[in-house]
Amino acid sequence: MTDRIVIALDGMGGDAAPEMVVGGAARARRNIPSVEFLLFGDSERLEPLVRKRKVLSGAVEIRHTDQVVRGDDKPSVALRAARESSMRKAIDAVKAGEAVAAVSAGNTGALMAMSKFVLKTIEGIDRPAIVRSVPTVKGQCCVLDLGANVQCSPDHLVQFAVMGEVFARTVLGVERPTIGLINIGIEEIKGHEEVREAAAILRETPLPITFTGFIEGNDISSGRVDVAVTDGFTGNVGLKIAEGTAKLIASFLRDAFRSSWRARLAYILARPALAVMRERTDPRHYDGAILGGLNGIVVKAHGGTDSLGFSNAIGVAVEMAVNGFVPKIKDDFERLKNTAVPVADQEPVA
Amino acid sequence: MTDRIVIALDGMGGDAAPEMVVGGAARARRNIPSVEFLLFGDSERLEPLVRKRKVLSGAVEIRHTDQVVRGDDKPSVALRAARESSMRKAIDAVKAGEAVAAVSAGNTGALMAMSKFVLKTIEGIDRPAIVRSVPTVKGQCCVLDLGANVQCSPDHLVQFAVMGEVFARTVLGVERPTIGLINIGIEEIKGHEEVREAAAILRETPLPITFTGFIEGNDISSGRVDVAVTDGFTGNVGLKIAEGTAKLIASFLRDAFRSSWRARLAYILARPALAVMRERTDPRHYDGAILGGLNGIVVKAHGGTDSLGFSNAIGVAVEMAVNGFVPKIKDDFERLKNTAVPVADQEPVA
Repeated sequence: MTDRIVIALDGMGGDAAPEMVVGGAARARRNIPSVEFLLFGDSERLEPLVRKRKVLSGAVEIRHTDQVVRGDDKPSVALRAARESSMRKAIDAVKAGEAVAAVSAGNTGALMAMSKFVLKTIEGIDRPAIVRSVPTVKGQCCVLDLGANVQCSPDHLVQFAVMGEVFARTVLGVERPTIGLINIGIEEIKGHEEVREAAAILRETPLPITFTGFIEGNDISSGRVDVAVTDGFTGNVGLKIAEGTAKLIASFLRDAFRSSWRARLAYILARPALAVMRERTDPRHYDGAILGGLNGIVVKAHGGTDSLGFSNAIGVAVEMAVNGFVPKIKDDFERLKNTAVPVADQEPVA
Repeated sequence: MTDRIVIALDGMGGDAAPEMVVGGAARARRNIPSVEFLLFGDSERLEPLVRKRKVLSGAVEIRHTDQVVRGDDKPSVALRAARESSMRKAIDAVKAGEAVAAVSAGNTGALMAMSKFVLKTIEGIDRPAIVRSVPTVKGQCCVLDLGANVQCSPDHLVQFAVMGEVFARTVLGVERPTIGLINIGIEEIKGHEEVREAAAILRETPLPITFTGFIEGNDISSGRVDVAVTDGFTGNVGLKIAEGTAKLIASFLRDAFRSSWRARLAYILARPALAVMRERTDPRHYDGAILGGLNGIVVKAHGGTDSLGFSNAIGVAVEMAVNGFVPKIKDDFERLKNTAVPVADQEPVA
């Protein structure tokens, strides 16, 4: 049992929980035989699901709890009242060192509030950010913040850039990731004060990161950079616009293939090729958003995910743990602390 | 010559100007025989282009000017120094009542600055916004602001909602357009103060508009509302993310159809159906963004547009003029002024 990797799972979070959680765990273990699970939730429902799957035999410890965080629970209420919930217990297991990461498909706000409270942010980071990779023409791009912080100061954006860089190195395996700051134009004078000031700081950063300057919305999927940084409002809306656009085109494509007998025949012929394409854009393959900046790894799977998506989120958690996401961020912020010019001493930005 | 509609054209704005401007004018006149043009720019280049096209015979008055606004001119510099430019002259023609609208594919910032200076905003509107319609599963949705205002107060967002509603009635012909405010969730507590306060004001508005509350990024293309309101930063980034996503999927689709002989054959069979689909998503059919909120109609065509896109932008200008976009907005703001509770007297927003 060397190199055991223990992941704590919120067994009850997500629309299709607990079935998809256990199914996801089984899928993940098929890919990563060294992974084991601490599974929190209603043991009466979880046990038969685990027993059914041979691959999970001996790899899952179920810890019973009755309490569940619901999708519409306010974060502050969940934080105060749901201390015995499956979500909270999973995070506590990371804090206690029983697991290297927690994965949940439950309420994002509650997960963020609990994670921040239990694990605390890394020194130098004011606020955790939600990070995920999205497909591009050239591969993948890490985008943050995807909704944790609706308003961000220049310092927050700079911290996101550093976190995103580590994420790209750790999860995407890019050696020297390039970082772009999302704006409404690439010229220095464009945008509001926060992005302009963040760019000014990043241009002068003593860290060995590759800041390429401003990028525009379309530069994410064109693969111009490995990391795209923005505030949580723009990031969240943008991600959902991208999802909506993909659905719209899929619906247009369906209409097109149904529009004539000739098109229907074409569809039959094109099916294998289209399946490959669907695979490339399948959001389940990109499931697993990290709450970055914490003293511990917490991964959020999509609320509506299935076992495939959830297994991918577990895979992200394992990769982050194995590749030392948290210590790498700590290193960077340690270095930043020792070398950075305090922001207040920077030249004023035009 | 009853019902002449005269449109002022910036003959030199846009990457493919002046050819695509004259080509666009010809296309537009084929669709709308009553349209005529005041064409500003280098007469030596414009005259032969116009002469070549029979459909424009007798329908174009060329007004010579040497000065051109370049794509990288700063708006403030263009405003001060380019008073004789083809862009400025086209806007001046609207102010002078010689044309009912101006269309330009030139520098957006300069066009906005000049239009605001020459035409002024309608009483009750603090800042013009950029409005455009985008395709949805059900039809089209008007989105604003697409980049004119990087930071917006609640009042600005409310004004955008009213403008957008008129736009949807005028250009899309929707009788009672529904309006949504873009946020990172649909619950009242979500988002930053500006959107929450704007929503509170819109819920209480005395105008007969249909405010449906918060929407998320994916609700634009799902067709949930006729008008989607957001600040210019989010709107600009979001629009470009949508464009980027569409390109990404098109590139995946191309790869898919090239991946095997079977897929190549399928492509040949599917070509007519795919052409229809391409037509539905072709950005040129949605070209023509309005600078809304001004005492006059100014339409911005995409900088990289061709004659098809430019003719569509002319079509938008004609529709706005014929259907009384400006007087309708004026009516609404007049009503708003007479009935509205001052914002300061509103209940505080939680």
